[in-house]
Amino acid sequence: MSSPSPRGRRPGSPDTRATVLAAARDSFAAAGFAGTTVRGVAAAAGVDAALVHHYFGTKHELFLAAVELPVDPRTRLAPVVAGGPDGAGTRLLRAFLGAWDDPELQPGLVAAARTVVAPGGDRLLRNAFIPAILAPTLGQLMPDRQDDRLALVVSQVLGLVLARYVMKIEPLASLPAEQVVTEMGPTLQRYFTGDLT
Amino acid sequence: MSSPSPRGRRPGSPDTRATVLAAARDSFAAAGFAGTTVRGVAAAAGVDAALVHHYFGTKHELFLAAVELPVDPRTRLAPVVAGGPDGAGTRLLRAFLGAWDDPELQPGLVAAARTVVAPGGDRLLRNAFIPAILAPTLGQLMPDRQDDRLALVVSQVLGLVLARYVMKIEPLASLPAEQVVTEMGPTLQRYFTGDLT
Repeated sequence: MSSPSPRGRRPGSPDTRATVLAAARDSFAAAGFAGTTVRGVAAAAGVDAALVHHYFGTKHELFLAAVELPVDPRTRLAPVVAGGPDGAGTRLLRAFLGAWDDPELQPGLVAAARTVVAPGGDRLLRNAFIPAILAPTLGQLMPDRQDDRLALVVSQVLGLVLARYVMKIEPLASLPAEQVVTEMGPTLQRYFTGDLT
Repeated sequence: MSSPSPRGRRPGSPDTRATVLAAARDSFAAAGFAGTTVRGVAAAAGVDAALVHHYFGTKHELFLAAVELPVDPRTRLAPVVAGGPDGAGTRLLRAFLGAWDDPELQPGLVAAARTVVAPGGDRLLRNAFIPAILAPTLGQLMPDRQDDRLALVVSQVLGLVLARYVMKIEPLASLPAEQVVTEMGPTLQRYFTGDLT
């Protein structure tokens, strides 16, 4: 990652940090990524906007901290996008499994997944993560019907996360990453570029 | 459904019912479907086994009541299995969407999905629902590697449930059922019978 992790920039008081992040989660969930401003989050948390910028960085970095993601998905998705539509399903799965199979990252990612599937978490995915992170990246690889295709990709990737990492359904939970890529890659490739009719 | 719904057979005391169902959930989750007995659940709940049988019926019906499923999946899956491997993906999706899109059934099914994805709920899916309900039915339609194929089917169906019904990700949440069948059917068919190598 090119920028410091949001986790490395904590305000001095854990209470202030928690208050800012709770206000950010509320705003991203309710108003979406585009409708959220650092100024508005700061006001809701009762702190100065400069403090939020100082400790959390940009709005994008504040979002990653609010959903407690230990990786920057834009950085991880860049090579997937750069490769173009051919093979995108395989590249997305490799990039994805590379992060989720990493024992350092997995606990934080599982925690984020649990946040997203808990009541209320859906709005973060719907209003912020998909339009602000996935649509501008993966959407470029789709020849048409980007919204339909993106929802299908999300449904299979969400199911993979739950089955392999959260609920640990065997044998999927223990398969080598490359076998998952082989078994599931064609599904994602069809959702990216295949005939859906 | 040929037998009365488990919901129609409540013990007189709501406390007793809740105690029995909690004991049943614990046992199905920890010991699995095969390792659970009505006698053991009754003992854990401090009631007579005859009372559990009287109010909840068979072990299978006790399981459906414990996970609060408003439909009997074996009844719904019977025609999917009867049709054989060809077209199984399409038939499973139609049967599945027929239950989940039903406004009478959807709230109970969403509640069951939330139970299963909440911490601890994974064991019910892993230890009871998959081996006792899905493997004996859908497994028959798979020519080889049943465990691998079943986990793939579960991953896509779980993702569909979360995306369409729990998190309501558009446009998937609002698509007509037949469009979902068209878009996702080939994925499930490949997981049932396709070449996974």
